[in-house]
Amino acid sequence: MGLVEKQRFTFAQAPNKLALESGATLGPVTIAYETCGTLNKDKSNVILVLHALSGDAHMAGFYTPEDAKPGWWDTMVGPGKGIDTDIYFVVCTNILGSCMGSTGPASINLETGKEYAAAFPMITITDMVNGQKALVDHLGIKKLLAVIGGSVGGMQVLEWCVRYPAMVTAALPLATTCRHSALAIAFNEVARQSIMADPNWNQGDYYGGKKPDMGLAIARMIGHITYLSDESMRLKFGRKLQNKSALSFEFGAEFQVESYLQYQGQKFIERFDANSFLYITKAADYFDLAREYGQGSLVNAFARCKAKFLVVSYSSDWLYPTYQSKEMVKAMKKNNLDVSFCEIDAQWGHDAFLLPDPRLDNLVTGFLRRAAHESSAL
Amino acid sequence: MGLVEKQRFTFAQAPNKLALESGATLGPVTIAYETCGTLNKDKSNVILVLHALSGDAHMAGFYTPEDAKPGWWDTMVGPGKGIDTDIYFVVCTNILGSCMGSTGPASINLETGKEYAAAFPMITITDMVNGQKALVDHLGIKKLLAVIGGSVGGMQVLEWCVRYPAMVTAALPLATTCRHSALAIAFNEVARQSIMADPNWNQGDYYGGKKPDMGLAIARMIGHITYLSDESMRLKFGRKLQNKSALSFEFGAEFQVESYLQYQGQKFIERFDANSFLYITKAADYFDLAREYGQGSLVNAFARCKAKFLVVSYSSDWLYPTYQSKEMVKAMKKNNLDVSFCEIDAQWGHDAFLLPDPRLDNLVTGFLRRAAHESSAL
Repeated sequence: MGLVEKQRFTFAQAPNKLALESGATLGPVTIAYETCGTLNKDKSNVILVLHALSGDAHMAGFYTPEDAKPGWWDTMVGPGKGIDTDIYFVVCTNILGSCMGSTGPASINLETGKEYAAAFPMITITDMVNGQKALVDHLGIKKLLAVIGGSVGGMQVLEWCVRYPAMVTAALPLATTCRHSALAIAFNEVARQSIMADPNWNQGDYYGGKKPDMGLAIARMIGHITYLSDESMRLKFGRKLQNKSALSFEFGAEFQVESYLQYQGQKFIERFDANSFLYITKAADYFDLAREYGQGSLVNAFARCKAKFLVVSYSSDWLYPTYQSKEMVKAMKKNNLDVSFCEIDAQWGHDAFLLPDPRLDNLVTGFLRRAAHESSAL
Repeated sequence: MGLVEKQRFTFAQAPNKLALESGATLGPVTIAYETCGTLNKDKSNVILVLHALSGDAHMAGFYTPEDAKPGWWDTMVGPGKGIDTDIYFVVCTNILGSCMGSTGPASINLETGKEYAAAFPMITITDMVNGQKALVDHLGIKKLLAVIGGSVGGMQVLEWCVRYPAMVTAALPLATTCRHSALAIAFNEVARQSIMADPNWNQGDYYGGKKPDMGLAIARMIGHITYLSDESMRLKFGRKLQNKSALSFEFGAEFQVESYLQYQGQKFIERFDANSFLYITKAADYFDLAREYGQGSLVNAFARCKAKFLVVSYSSDWLYPTYQSKEMVKAMKKNNLDVSFCEIDAQWGHDAFLLPDPRLDNLVTGFLRRAAHESSAL
């Protein structure tokens, strides 16, 4: 990709607010988004990319020629790539509740003139998808050729398929789950506790003052452990020391893995808002396709789906292990849906879906071509 | 077991201090310990039980008839139990650096009249074992029929076998490892960060003031996640809500697993010292049998061993997975040591070694009988 531009769409100007799943309302709502490629005449070549917890709308390309780093999925989205921008019009939106351009707890509440902070209403995956739906409607797009995303983005993919079945031709949920396990909730809760234990968090009211940096850094460190795997950490760090040949017998980052985690924590506090972390992790914990749509049964939940699916899991992902993907595949198949499933053998844990991998590129390319061909979209 | 009594042994009165692995010295050193059973005439029926991170010397029985809870391994240690106190004289010591009677950072430094706090020297597994060795010598015991312990206790078992090979007839390292993986170090480091990020930690100097309770509670919550398993958490909690039938759309302990972790964190701060947590986890991270004794090779490390081994791992233990036990078994076998290995199929994760399990009881009973018989100890 070459240069891209962040765009913003604001809707539901007061008093017409977005109705949230919790019963609360929110408005006006701004959705930040970016597009790559060209929308064709009948608007049938649209692919919606949905980002994970700490991602943003900047999926590919650069904002300026001087930019050092491209968007987060630049290896996948671009001319001739897995999601080929010579063929498709690719849209990525920043999720509701985030801090990367869309409305979130750090946004100004027009009614008070101050940041929402803890007064921001609880957001669910459904609410995120409803925000995206508003943008898609605004762009005059009636049908999405594909929705694709990993992790929390994969939850949005599933939500799209179940909530707006007539609008989705094909769906690629990657490294994701239909509902958080107790283990995944546990990690998120400890991470949230660590933010809320930081005195600078101040019940969420810290904008303009000292931020809960320590708490957020620790939350991120916890997250990073769950994104890797025992094997990847062994290969990457093992017991290697950081800039030392012998033990120093002091506290502090002595092993490389400690230094890596501290670096990840520090990098994160420069770009992410602690309250957004709280709201988005809670949305992920709440997500439960079976509860929301199936009266407890995943098979029931997928009964309303029409999309064809490519489900991808990673062998060393212990946050959303393969057995959870198989569970969703089974429920899809019971509804006679067109489902392909692939467990990619990879040692990099949950993070694997973000790493360049020709196997995923090939799977995505083939699946999208078939979806476009069979739906006569292109 | 009936009633037991906590005893204390203090040695190395100044200026004769304990020489630590780091090069520092510590003294006087007190070791708290408890015994069950009767020492036989030739002192050949001694079993040393070594506790894990947050344990203490109180392995079995009650202090008073009113005590609600027995010692931490009461299911294993007692008359007719796996470690049969009708036959064996069982000794358990509180590890150096802890806060349960042995010298640790919360102890008074006689030279200053104040708690050691952060001035407490770094402790290693070797130092812990040297403290135990001083007690064993003091009791006039020349040889241990068996050393047995799980997790960090298992590291001490291995250290005993390698450091004092002539003193150990049989050894049972349970649910343990010869060296922490990067994953295990990562969890410990994040837990330590969470304590040190608590403003009440105050560089370790909090005795007499507010304690870093929030940080320690979060550290314990992180620990507890690693002691369970995906499967055990699914069976125990799943996505069940705590005292609620519907989502409240509020932060706080809403899922049962969240409530459980918060409860564990709160319970822990009532009984454990945050600085002890820092020192003991660091000792566990430092432990590396291959580095200390084998010039990088586990096979070399076990070359000095004479003990017969029963190595036990648990199928769902992802903190010290079975492959790590197999690694140590392989190194033992290369030295032609008498080794039995058993992976117990259990869903309860690392914690399984502390839970009542007739399979472990039977393994331990049989192994100890054989060790006593073959060594003509009894």
